Amino acid sequence: MFNKVEHVGIAVKNLEEAINEFELLSEQKCYKTEVVESESVKTAFIQIGESKIELLEATNNSSPIAKFLEKKGPGFHHIAFDVYNIEDEISRLKKNGFILIHESSKFGADNKKIAFLHPKSTSGVLVEICQERKE
Amino acid sequence: MFNKVEHVGIAVKNLEEAINEFELLSEQKCYKTEVVESESVKTAFIQIGESKIELLEATNNSSPIAKFLEKKGPGFHHIAFDVYNIEDEISRLKKNGFILIHESSKFGADNKKIAFLHPKSTSGVLVEICQERKE
Repeated sequence: MFNKVEHVGIAVKNLEEAINEFELLSEQKCYKTEVVESESVKTAFIQIGESKIELLEATNNSSPIAKFLEKKGPGFHHIAFDVYNIEDEISRLKKNGFILIHESSKFGADNKKIAFLHPKSTSGVLVEICQERKE
Repeated sequence: MFNKVEHVGIAVKNLEEAINEFELLSEQKCYKTEVVESESVKTAFIQIGESKIELLEATNNSSPIAKFLEKKGPGFHHIAFDVYNIEDEISRLKKNGFILIHESSKFGADNKKIAFLHPKSTSGVLVEICQERKE
């Protein structure tokens, strides 16, 4: 079961400009930036209510975000839902015919275990499920 | 100031199919469908935490959603943020250089006063601000 919208991911060309823009827009502050080497992205998070806006900038040309920007331009990239147990959710979603990009969870930004579903099983929307990592 | 992500709007080709898909995906139930004649859309809402997924189907070929689907296909359409006073927010955003599609609020789905910002001032993202109407 999905508990909440954990974040909405937005692909941007220039992270610093986008942070300024979304801070001014929302009157909420960016509380963290983080580089995720494995994904070749630099991310920034702005909390709005129980959810976050995650701004995503490519760190090199082979980044999935660089490819996304080239194809579609800046804008919505994905939506992430918080789940209690990501491995159970992956099993449940697979049983129900959803196509998982990852067969098991991996480590993502913001101290999370994450997995992505293929947009063709979710009305063109790239869906992430994520679970807070317990240290 | 933005209080929370009120909803994420997703353009879909077939509303009934999309409702089934997102109910199965999230294990949350669609609690309402609503036709907004002025926008030529039929909408469906699924609550997930404090936010909603708003599925949007065109009711005719001149609907903004029909045009969106033709150009971009199904997927993310807009993100809506809850605000306390929409007229104050419109003034604040205009002062800060954001481009408003509507100069004042209008009535939208789900008992809301709404206004949209132009995506060119918000990193390619179509942003809605909305305020619950007091009856």
